[in-house]
Amino acid sequence: MASRAERAERFRALHRAAGTFVLPNAWDVPSARIFEEAGFPALATSSAGVMVSLGYPDGEEIPRAEYLAAVRRIASRLSVPLSVDLVAGFGHSPAEVVDTVRAAVDAGAVGINLEDQDPEGDGVLPLELQLAKLRAIAELNDELGVPVVVNARTDVLWRGPGEPAERLREAVRRCREYREAGADCVYPMRLVAREEIALFLEEVPGPLNVMVRSGLPPLPELERLGVRRVSFGPAASYATFGLLRRVGREILEERSFRSLTEGAITFDELNRLAVAGERPGADGR
Amino acid sequence: MASRAERAERFRALHRAAGTFVLPNAWDVPSARIFEEAGFPALATSSAGVMVSLGYPDGEEIPRAEYLAAVRRIASRLSVPLSVDLVAGFGHSPAEVVDTVRAAVDAGAVGINLEDQDPEGDGVLPLELQLAKLRAIAELNDELGVPVVVNARTDVLWRGPGEPAERLREAVRRCREYREAGADCVYPMRLVAREEIALFLEEVPGPLNVMVRSGLPPLPELERLGVRRVSFGPAASYATFGLLRRVGREILEERSFRSLTEGAITFDELNRLAVAGERPGADGR
Repeated sequence: MASRAERAERFRALHRAAGTFVLPNAWDVPSARIFEEAGFPALATSSAGVMVSLGYPDGEEIPRAEYLAAVRRIASRLSVPLSVDLVAGFGHSPAEVVDTVRAAVDAGAVGINLEDQDPEGDGVLPLELQLAKLRAIAELNDELGVPVVVNARTDVLWRGPGEPAERLREAVRRCREYREAGADCVYPMRLVAREEIALFLEEVPGPLNVMVRSGLPPLPELERLGVRRVSFGPAASYATFGLLRRVGREILEERSFRSLTEGAITFDELNRLAVAGERPGADGR
Repeated sequence: MASRAERAERFRALHRAAGTFVLPNAWDVPSARIFEEAGFPALATSSAGVMVSLGYPDGEEIPRAEYLAAVRRIASRLSVPLSVDLVAGFGHSPAEVVDTVRAAVDAGAVGINLEDQDPEGDGVLPLELQLAKLRAIAELNDELGVPVVVNARTDVLWRGPGEPAERLREAVRRCREYREAGADCVYPMRLVAREEIALFLEEVPGPLNVMVRSGLPPLPELERLGVRRVSFGPAASYATFGLLRRVGREILEERSFRSLTEGAITFDELNRLAVAGERPGADGR
């Protein structure tokens, strides 16, 4: 397995390379391993995916330790870099958030997402608080030796106050400030319109992350625009449970196992997803 | 939520009712909840599905407590009965296996599977040992007040010694003996051929369980034959990771998100799968 430093550097390099990389978000060991086997150069966790799989709604209701135990399970079976969605950091203060980042790194993360959505309300956290968190993480990064790649997410576009135009301005402003506070990449949630993506790319220096979502331009167009990172969010969970719903309906309504058996993998293939794969070359061996 | 007694009785009654019921095997909270929402009257766990999701190959490598913690998570969010695959019982002696059954009941199981595959070799366990385990479970059932539904699986058809015809005779013999030792239902692994299913239905009294597998006759034919219970085994995991493999390949080779977004559920639907659903009427309310 590649060292932590190698994985972190490989992940960081994806943010500097030309072109767009797609980052699939997984929620358990086999969903991560199947994307690794498909050839993605890095993976992320979907917080909603992980939490729901363990019986918690998206948010910070899950105990941090239970969430990070799932991260550790996934990271321990992967050879590609893993970025971990830390929601709003599982804590109010910058010190608490830093503690969470440290625990995520210990669990195997080489990148993190931190959002400004208020985990206890409908709005967003004050800008100053979020900046203090990001600066504290930057200080931790100086300490760590192998710095974690920080993806700063803003939820202003859908959770912020004011009209859409105001929210857009505020989201741009926040992303600029997040970059100055040490974020490596910015991630405006619900950014889908072509012109708004172009605005962010013009106004905010550094790599931009968008999420797969209805209305998002196709991947080749995102590449032309200059989007660096496209992540699934919980989309693979949505697809999975859409399939299982069809499986259930077909059996109960049509007495057919078609969707259950077509395009399926085998027992041996499933079993292999439980353990670290051998990917000569994938991590430089 | 229905009481344990109600759920156990509802599950037992499915084995006595006319017709065939399909038992979907889930591996985490949302895979269980989506099948419950689809309208299946009962669910089971897939041991391979649960184990692989937590990073262990199928078998008994996973610590029993970690496996049963996953069972507890699933059971606590369901209102329909849950049957739990206990592999070979996580123990050598009948007393150890009884202890596992007790722990599974405590975690929320109202039914169990017990197989005669040797967890430490390629063969099957001695018949006498398996019978001693089943009799010990029957004694536990007398104690429990609410007896657990026991599904006795034999792996002789693919793990037993001898020619296919001998294996078939031995599997029939074992299933008859398992019934006499207290099993409510028998489950010959790899039983798919129409004539062999008919043989079991003739030779072994009581309900028969077959698994969805390539070559199995269609559901309407299984109903005509008189098969009582059809379970997925790990098939829903095979289908899920088949889909995620297609998702990955399409993105990397065609730069398309089609399989990721078509037929998907929504964020709100995913979030609802984390928690116990409201199913008025489903459990008699």
